[in-house]
Amino acid sequence: MVVPVRRRGAELEGAIIDAAIEQLCEVGWKSLTMEGVAAGAHTGKAAVYRRWSSKADLVADALEARLPPLLEASDTGSIRGDLVQLCRWMRDVMHSRSGEALRSVLHECDSTGVERFQGLIFNRLVRPSAEVFRLLVERGITRGDVRADARGEYVADVIPAMMMYRSKVCGSEWPNSDIEEFADQVLVPLLRG
Amino acid sequence: MVVPVRRRGAELEGAIIDAAIEQLCEVGWKSLTMEGVAAGAHTGKAAVYRRWSSKADLVADALEARLPPLLEASDTGSIRGDLVQLCRWMRDVMHSRSGEALRSVLHECDSTGVERFQGLIFNRLVRPSAEVFRLLVERGITRGDVRADARGEYVADVIPAMMMYRSKVCGSEWPNSDIEEFADQVLVPLLRG
Repeated sequence: MVVPVRRRGAELEGAIIDAAIEQLCEVGWKSLTMEGVAAGAHTGKAAVYRRWSSKADLVADALEARLPPLLEASDTGSIRGDLVQLCRWMRDVMHSRSGEALRSVLHECDSTGVERFQGLIFNRLVRPSAEVFRLLVERGITRGDVRADARGEYVADVIPAMMMYRSKVCGSEWPNSDIEEFADQVLVPLLRG
Repeated sequence: MVVPVRRRGAELEGAIIDAAIEQLCEVGWKSLTMEGVAAGAHTGKAAVYRRWSSKADLVADALEARLPPLLEASDTGSIRGDLVQLCRWMRDVMHSRSGEALRSVLHECDSTGVERFQGLIFNRLVRPSAEVFRLLVERGITRGDVRADARGEYVADVIPAMMMYRSKVCGSEWPNSDIEEFADQVLVPLLRG
């Protein structure tokens, strides 16, 4: 290794970021402290403050770094299969450690703070998911199992809307069987010709 | 009038309830006080405490009393018209003074308190709206502009899910033009045979 110091810096940064995600899941946004994160990362408070001047900056970077990468939407051969795949990915993101951390932020943060994190959700989850959805619709139109006029923005919002609604209002954890029912009752009828 | 005292009691109660709704809209759940409500109703704190032993009890009763009555879903002659009517009613409830008061509670209340008010939302808005939706679907199946297998629970959740999602994530106020786009892009294609 020719740059051991830099590598140690990135490793330490990763440990701090992991500790921030854990703190969010364990104690929540309000009780998270820079000291607690430093302790979780087995380092000192100064090492945290050297990189992030505030808790909000640290948490934003931690979420940005740890939210799962975008789905590679492979062709399952049918619009039903493709959409089930997309919903499962969204469910897995929601249930991931970083998704849990994000929910704790949104749940506890005051309204000015929330705007910043809502922007992060929009850019890292909502917009990429909508782009994948549009890709699947185009593929389905070409394949022939999606109607040609299914390109509207309200159509693209049905999946995230339903996933948010049933998680919040019904406490749904979206097991695979529920995703399939949703696909059969709503998504396939909505999109087919 | 043979029962002036009782009538004055109901009037005073109504004034206290109105004042509670106003306080929720103006200062929010956290800053609402029994004193502030009493002042708004031009009465004393004792008159409020005589009827409600806590702020949560008062607010729950106020919301229960002032949320708009259930939609009388008249037959517009088509599923599109019927659903546009239902969406407009839901939008109007969200934008009403009591709807605004309810949002302030949900936004500020801690998680134990929120459960109680989520129950109220479910019983006063979610379930009745779902019942109206099911009525409209049955009417459409009989009329012939709704497919016979559109009775699923996921189908019934599409309207509230979308209204919640676009309000929260896109800041939509649901003008009539948006409701009609939603109906044309999603609801009519989803339900037709």
